[in-house]
Amino acid sequence: MRLARRLAAESLGTALLLAVVIGSGVMAERLAGGNVALALLANTLATVGGLYVLIEVFGPLSGAHFNPAVSAVMAWRRELPAGALLPYVVAQLVGAVLGAWLAHAMFDLPVLQVSAKLRSGTGQWIAEAVATFGLVLVVLRAPAGRAAAMVAAYIGAAYWFTASTSFANPAAVFGRMFSDSFAGIAPASAPGFVLAELAGAALAVAAHRLLFSGEDST
Amino acid sequence: MRLARRLAAESLGTALLLAVVIGSGVMAERLAGGNVALALLANTLATVGGLYVLIEVFGPLSGAHFNPAVSAVMAWRRELPAGALLPYVVAQLVGAVLGAWLAHAMFDLPVLQVSAKLRSGTGQWIAEAVATFGLVLVVLRAPAGRAAAMVAAYIGAAYWFTASTSFANPAAVFGRMFSDSFAGIAPASAPGFVLAELAGAALAVAAHRLLFSGEDST
Amino acid sequence: MRLARRLAAESLGTALLLAVVIGSGVMAERLAGGNVALALLANTLATVGGLYVLIEVFGPLSGAHFNPAVSAVMAWRRELPAGALLPYVVAQLVGAVLGAWLAHAMFDLPVLQVSAKLRSGTGQWIAEAVATFGLVLVVLRAPAGRAAAMVAAYIGAAYWFTASTSFANPAAVFGRMFSDSFAGIAPASAPGFVLAELAGAALAVAAHRLLFSGEDST
Amino acid sequence: MRLARRLAAESLGTALLLAVVIGSGVMAERLAGGNVALALLANTLATVGGLYVLIEVFGPLSGAHFNPAVSAVMAWRRELPAGALLPYVVAQLVGAVLGAWLAHAMFDLPVLQVSAKLRSGTGQWIAEAVATFGLVLVVLRAPAGRAAAMVAAYIGAAYWFTASTSFANPAAVFGRMFSDSFAGIAPASAPGFVLAELAGAALAVAAHRLLFSGEDST
Repeated sequence: MRLARRLAAESLGTALLLAVVIGSGVMAERLAGGNVALALLANTLATVGGLYVLIEVFGPLSGAHFNPAVSAVMAWRRELPAGALLPYVVAQLVGAVLGAWLAHAMFDLPVLQVSAKLRSGTGQWIAEAVATFGLVLVVLRAPAGRAAAMVAAYIGAAYWFTASTSFANPAAVFGRMFSDSFAGIAPASAPGFVLAELAGAALAVAAHRLLFSGEDST
Repeated sequence: MRLARRLAAESLGTALLLAVVIGSGVMAERLAGGNVALALLANTLATVGGLYVLIEVFGPLSGAHFNPAVSAVMAWRRELPAGALLPYVVAQLVGAVLGAWLAHAMFDLPVLQVSAKLRSGTGQWIAEAVATFGLVLVVLRAPAGRAAAMVAAYIGAAYWFTASTSFANPAAVFGRMFSDSFAGIAPASAPGFVLAELAGAALAVAAHRLLFSGEDST
Repeated sequence: MRLARRLAAESLGTALLLAVVIGSGVMAERLAGGNVALALLANTLATVGGLYVLIEVFGPLSGAHFNPAVSAVMAWRRELPAGALLPYVVAQLVGAVLGAWLAHAMFDLPVLQVSAKLRSGTGQWIAEAVATFGLVLVVLRAPAGRAAAMVAAYIGAAYWFTASTSFANPAAVFGRMFSDSFAGIAPASAPGFVLAELAGAALAVAAHRLLFSGEDST
Repeated sequence: MRLARRLAAESLGTALLLAVVIGSGVMAERLAGGNVALALLANTLATVGGLYVLIEVFGPLSGAHFNPAVSAVMAWRRELPAGALLPYVVAQLVGAVLGAWLAHAMFDLPVLQVSAKLRSGTGQWIAEAVATFGLVLVVLRAPAGRAAAMVAAYIGAAYWFTASTSFANPAAVFGRMFSDSFAGIAPASAPGFVLAELAGAALAVAAHRLLFSGEDST
């Protein structure tokens, strides 16, 4: 019962996160008239605001991962029971697709879509690894009560400083495959992104251990 | 006496909120030279800043609802006395119109206007339901001391991720009917928006009960 | 000795505030290539960040008024000794001019300038009264530890929702007279702005008394 | 062992800071299509978010200086052991170059570059002195728990109100020499910037002593 609620929270939270990311991308592209920098700026600010709020709302119930890479790290650190990892990931993936569909419904777009936007190459993969490295480090180091603000601020920066606009989240990759819009990613590009993200997450766990183990946790 | 003050606070706060929303829309449209994305970005940031401050200023006195949907939810949860609901709503509606007029006076526009901007269709109504669903969930879950920041951040995101730019507030709909400007809405489109908002609010109450009842409140 | 330090803090803080407002206006206008909305957006964000920091830095020493209207309100409420009001105002005015000059020096502009930008009319004056009304209300209601964030957020909103871009500060009017740049104001327009600001401040004191007297202060 | 970790933190943190500054500059310039104001706005917001997070993450371990001028001030105040100053500075400089290279790798640019962007003149040097003066004052006055937000907000403002876009950090100057991009600085311009920064830092220490010595520290 308790787990069911946590899974519902992960699913609903991930759905709303994807609706924010994809919906604001559609709105921004429609209004920006080809000014891509302006569109990404609006997409960034909407994501920052939405992510901050969603983590505050769902954090006390499920941890507000919304992200299989984060859930895997938490399971590895035994802060998430091992048996909950797979259900968490499934809930996040289902939520991500529902969120993409919700965005399409709001913007009167065909609900079912598949992205044709290829995103690949060494630079993109390094970028996704760096993006996820940073995200996991932030999650592991955030003082109590500041995780929401820190994760949101980090992702806002990473939309711009990483060459991939920082997906940093396999569930986001999955959901964005199903949207042929500003925020989409072609299915053919998804495996490279997810592998890079997992590598970045593993690196972050290692760096965290080297730098901070035995520190008074903050 | 105490209720009179709270009603004055709701009225003044709603007036200032509408002055912020409409005034910044007029300023943004004037300066942006047809760049709608830039105009909405400025309108968003002004709304976020203004909403944050207004909730901090008036919250301790009246709860800083500024929104009949929020007041109805609070009455349903018995956090607002049932007898105060109707006066609250009237105060908000009166304030909303006064705020629109104040914005017009500042920008040397005719004070009395009616919007001609039609906003309707399935996508818009889904968007308003989603926008209000999120707002009410945020209000019900905000930890003490964070409501102002969370509501402001949420509305900032919702200006972009919902197809309707997130009115999410029947009093805002009412006030914006009386402004034929960037932020306006034609009276013919108002009932659809308000119904969608009330549906979203009801859904949020149900979702909150399913997910969080019996949780330690945060 | 103690008062001398507080006056130095008011003067240095006001100088830095004006350097932020005028300097970011010059930078924004230079880079924006005629896009006034974009220039005001950059000017707004720089002002919000700068104001937040300056109030945090100088608040514990002098109260961080940087504004004769705020100092007058504080003297009226006996939170500033009556004898300190005139020295405070002089320190603010001197600082404001020095700040304008500092901005000019940084941007390789003639140090001595007088603005030719006329700003007048009923709408502008209503706007300045509203802007200062809101600022003083925020100052009087800000909970301990939140004044800096609230004032900064408020001014950021007011740059857009008031037709005058919210000077809301007689010292800012004074300093900006001496800069023929984006943020300037012609001396002929200054008296109208200052009178409107003082009227707005007085209205805020009255509204605060009506609504909040006898409340538990927050 | 303890010092080794702190040096690693300074190096990694400075590397990530430079990756944020340079990477977001590259992204912004690519997307902005010649709109320099928009590019700097995106560069600013990414820097603000990244700096806030990096200071929160590394602050408890190394102090999160990422800046030789700040480390020098801390050594002068005996908050950093004198023997740690040189290692700190070396770690920061090495990190800065690595960060520039990481940004280039993400954006598929040649890793090894030298900037050709000249930045000099009296206005630029005054600007760097003012920028660093403000930064050091903020560092010395930030209340516990607010340093990250205050430094980030300050730098965001200083990108716009100083004519030099506020490097305010000799390690940032060093790293940005190795990037021929939006954020770069030609080696010939570096000494002038660094001298101005050190002068600004010294002035801030003096002003802090005059204004705040003997105050209850906040």
